[in-house]
Amino acid sequence: MDAALLAELRAILPRPGALLIHEEELRPYECDGLTAYRRLPGAVALPETIAQVQAILKLCHRHGIPVVARGAGTGLSGGALPLDEGVLLSLARFNRILALDPLARTARVQPGVRNLAISEAARPHGLYYAPDPSSQIACSIGGNVAENSGGVHCLKYGLTVHNVIALEVVTIEGERLSIGSAALDSAGYDLLALLHGSEGMLGVIVEVTVRLLPVPERAQVVMAAFDEVPAAGRAVGDIIAAGIVPAGLEMMDGFAIAAAEAFVHAGYPPDAAAILLCEVDGTNEEVSEHLLQVHDLLTRAGATQIRTARDAAERQLLWQGRKAAFPAVGRLSPDYYCMDGTIPRRRLPEVLAGIASLSAEYGLRVANVFHAGDGNLHPLILYDANTPGELARTEEFGARILQLCVEVGGTITGEHGVGVEKLDSMCVQFDRAELSQFHAVKHAFDTEGLLNPGKAVPTLHRCAELGAMHVHGGALPFPELDRF
Amino acid sequence: MDAALLAELRAILPRPGALLIHEEELRPYECDGLTAYRRLPGAVALPETIAQVQAILKLCHRHGIPVVARGAGTGLSGGALPLDEGVLLSLARFNRILALDPLARTARVQPGVRNLAISEAARPHGLYYAPDPSSQIACSIGGNVAENSGGVHCLKYGLTVHNVIALEVVTIEGERLSIGSAALDSAGYDLLALLHGSEGMLGVIVEVTVRLLPVPERAQVVMAAFDEVPAAGRAVGDIIAAGIVPAGLEMMDGFAIAAAEAFVHAGYPPDAAAILLCEVDGTNEEVSEHLLQVHDLLTRAGATQIRTARDAAERQLLWQGRKAAFPAVGRLSPDYYCMDGTIPRRRLPEVLAGIASLSAEYGLRVANVFHAGDGNLHPLILYDANTPGELARTEEFGARILQLCVEVGGTITGEHGVGVEKLDSMCVQFDRAELSQFHAVKHAFDTEGLLNPGKAVPTLHRCAELGAMHVHGGALPFPELDRF
Repeated sequence: MDAALLAELRAILPRPGALLIHEEELRPYECDGLTAYRRLPGAVALPETIAQVQAILKLCHRHGIPVVARGAGTGLSGGALPLDEGVLLSLARFNRILALDPLARTARVQPGVRNLAISEAARPHGLYYAPDPSSQIACSIGGNVAENSGGVHCLKYGLTVHNVIALEVVTIEGERLSIGSAALDSAGYDLLALLHGSEGMLGVIVEVTVRLLPVPERAQVVMAAFDEVPAAGRAVGDIIAAGIVPAGLEMMDGFAIAAAEAFVHAGYPPDAAAILLCEVDGTNEEVSEHLLQVHDLLTRAGATQIRTARDAAERQLLWQGRKAAFPAVGRLSPDYYCMDGTIPRRRLPEVLAGIASLSAEYGLRVANVFHAGDGNLHPLILYDANTPGELARTEEFGARILQLCVEVGGTITGEHGVGVEKLDSMCVQFDRAELSQFHAVKHAFDTEGLLNPGKAVPTLHRCAELGAMHVHGGALPFPELDRF
Repeated sequence: MDAALLAELRAILPRPGALLIHEEELRPYECDGLTAYRRLPGAVALPETIAQVQAILKLCHRHGIPVVARGAGTGLSGGALPLDEGVLLSLARFNRILALDPLARTARVQPGVRNLAISEAARPHGLYYAPDPSSQIACSIGGNVAENSGGVHCLKYGLTVHNVIALEVVTIEGERLSIGSAALDSAGYDLLALLHGSEGMLGVIVEVTVRLLPVPERAQVVMAAFDEVPAAGRAVGDIIAAGIVPAGLEMMDGFAIAAAEAFVHAGYPPDAAAILLCEVDGTNEEVSEHLLQVHDLLTRAGATQIRTARDAAERQLLWQGRKAAFPAVGRLSPDYYCMDGTIPRRRLPEVLAGIASLSAEYGLRVANVFHAGDGNLHPLILYDANTPGELARTEEFGARILQLCVEVGGTITGEHGVGVEKLDSMCVQFDRAELSQFHAVKHAFDTEGLLNPGKAVPTLHRCAELGAMHVHGGALPFPELDRF
C-alpha cells in the first residue's frame, strides 16, 4: 500500500497497534467464517472513535481506496473478505455498552459489542436481546446489523432489523447520519431497514440502539422423533396452523442427529429419521397450555417419541445438540459447506426430497439442520477439498439447492448474507430491473463504489455471462398461492 | 394539459371513464384527507391493469410529466395532493383480492383493496390483517404501504411494514420490480421496507402480499379514569414495565372525553382528567391473567374508576368513543388540525404539560387523543379558518408541538406521513447530511423527480430559508438514556 497514504492513516491512528501493515499482523484478517476464500488486506485500521472512522473514510474517499468494514469476523458468506489494495476497517475496539434504559427497554451500544454481552448486561434488569445467531458468543452487533442476522428465536422475535431502533452511520464521505429514533416510526425513507443486511456497502455502522425484551417467565422445550422426514415437516405446519408461535422450532435429519448425538450426547434417538425441537415461552399458564397442544399435535403427526425437558439442565442439553450440529457434522468429513436458503414452510417435504436427489446426483452427502418454523434451511454438504474438483462440484450442488429454493418461492439467503459466496445465485433470484435498482441504491450512498466492492450484488455483466438463469421473471411471484 | 399527451393517455386507457379531464370530474381528486390544501390535477388516470400503469408511467417519463399516485384519498398529510400539470394516477380500480393462503397465512391483493376488506375475506379462515388505522373502512392497502400506517393495535402487532411480505412495484421508467418474498427474509437491499412510508415518491405499488394473523381467542378492554393527566401517563409506563404488551393502549384527555361522551355516549366518566383504554388479547388464560395484573396496576397508579367490558357489545362501545373522538371534537369547533408526533413513552407527562402551555400561549384549545402505548400523540388543535390569521397561528402551534417531540427524542410523524403538511418539520428533525441522503435515495429510483414531487422530503434550500431550526444535530441522539 502506498507509503504516503499509510502516513496519512498513521496520523489519524497514532496509537501503537491501531494500524497494521505487516503480513504477520494482517494474516488474522484474511478471511471471515467463510474460510474457503482468503485474501490479505492492504492495511488494517483499528479506530477507537467515531471521529477517527470519519477521518479514515474521508481519506479513503479522497484517494479512491476501497474500504471493507469488519466486526468479529464470524460471517459465513465472505462479506468481510478484504481487498489487497484496500483498507480493512475493524470495529473491534468499539466494544462499549454506552447506555441501558430499563424503562424504555433499549440499549445503546458500540458496534463491536458481542451479541451475547448485550443480554448479559440486560439480565440484572430482567431483560435480554432476542436475536441469537449460533455465533452469539463471538459475533458483534454491528455485524449482526450488516447481515441482518437471525437465530433460533427469530421465528417469534424477528430478525435483527425487528430489534434495532436506531443507528449512527458514517458515510464513505465521512458524514455522520443519525437513523431511526426512540419512537416507533421515523419520518423520511426507511434508511434504518435499508442499512440492515446491506453488508457494509452503504455505510459504516458506529453505534446501534437495540430494543430489549423481558426475559419470559418460563421457557420449555419439547423434542419429538419421527421415522420419516415428511411427517416431521407436516408437524411443523400443524403447529403453526394451530396458532402457536413457538419461540423456536428446529429440525434435524438422521445424519445430523447421529453426528450431534455422537458429539454431545444430548439424548436424541440415534435411529430417528428426523427430530423436531419445539420451544415455547411466555407466562406459566401460556406455556402449560401450549405444551399440551404441541404434545397432542406431535402425537397426531406420527411422532415415535416425545420428550419434554423436565428442568433447565435438560433444556440446555436438548439445545446443545442442535447448537453443536455444525461442528458435529464437521467431525465426519474433512470439509463441509453450509448453505442458507429460505422457503415457504409448506414446501419443506418437497425441497428436502429435492436435496436428497441432488445429493445422489452429485455423490455428496448432506446433513440437514434448519430453522423449520421459518423455513430457513441449512443443508451441510460434506466434501474433501483435497479431492480434485470436489469443491467446485460442491459449489455447483449448493447453487442448485438455492435455485430450488427460489423456484418454490423462497430466497437464496435466510440469515448468512450474500457476501462473495452467493453472487451468482443473486442472478437466479433477481432480474435485470431489480439488480439495476440495487445498484442505483448503492450509488445513492457510495457513488464511487468504495465500500466493500464486489460483494452482495453482482454486476449485470456477471449475470449475463452466467446465462439465462433467472428463475422468477415472467412467472407470478407466488405461484403456489391458491386462487381466492 | 397538452392535447397530444391526452391523446396518448387515451390510447392507453380507451375505456369510458378511465381518463378524466373535465373540471367537474377532476374536482373529487383536488385533495385527500388534509382538506386545507386543494389543487386540481391536469388529468386523472384510472388504469385497471399493471400493463396500463407501466404504459402511463413510461409515457409520463418520456414527456417529463409528474405523476401523483392515489389510493382511497384518506391520507392526512396531503401526500396525494395533485399537481395542475401532472397526472393523478388513481389505483381505485385495482380492487381485487387475488389469492388467500390460509396455511401460509398470506393474502395477495391489489393496492386499491380496502384495509378492512382483507380482514373480512380472511375471517372465514379464522384470520385477520392486524394494522387498523381509524380509516380502515375506507383506506386502501396501497395507501397504507405508502404511508406505513399504524392504528390502535400496532403497539402489539406493528406497523404496515411489519405485516407486508412482498410488493409488486412499477418504477417511473415503467419497469416492474418484485420486492420481498414469501420467505422471512430476502437477499439484496431491503427495498421492501424502503418502499413503506415512501409516499409514492419511489414507485407505484401495484400488488401487495400481506401477512395474516389468527384472530385471538379472546380480547377484552379495560377503561380507567384518572383525575390528573400525569397519573394516567405513569400508568402507561407501569403496564409496559410489567412486561404486558397490550393489543391497544389509548389515552384521551378531559376535553376529548367530554366531546366523545356527548357524541356517542360510550359511558366515559365526563369529569375525568384522562382515561386509558387498555385492550389485552390472546388465549383465555393469558387474557385473564393480564386483566388481573392490569387492574392491579391501574389501581395502584391512582385510577379513580376502572371498568372492564363484560361482553363484546360493551367492548365495542368503549372503543367506539375512542374511534369517534376526532369527529366528536370536530363538532365543537368550525375546524380542527390533527397533529401526529411520536415520543418516547416516558416523556409523556412532560410533553403533555408542554402542549398545555403552548395552548395557553397561542390561545387555541387542544384535545389530546393518542396511542399512549407507543407514544404516538394526536393533539387536535381547534381553530376557525374564517378568523383571519388563525390558520397560520394553528400551523405554527402545530410545528412547535412537533419540535417538542423531536427535542425529547421523538419524531414528527407517527403514522400520518409528511406529505405537504410537515415539510418544514422535516428540517427540524434532520440535518443537511441526512436530508441529502434522502434525496440521493429518491434519485436512485426517480432521477428526474417525477413521482409525487414536492412531498415528504424538503429541499435543502427550503430548510436553509427556514433558518437554524435543526434540533438534534450535535447532541447525542438519545440524551434521555441513563449512562450505563
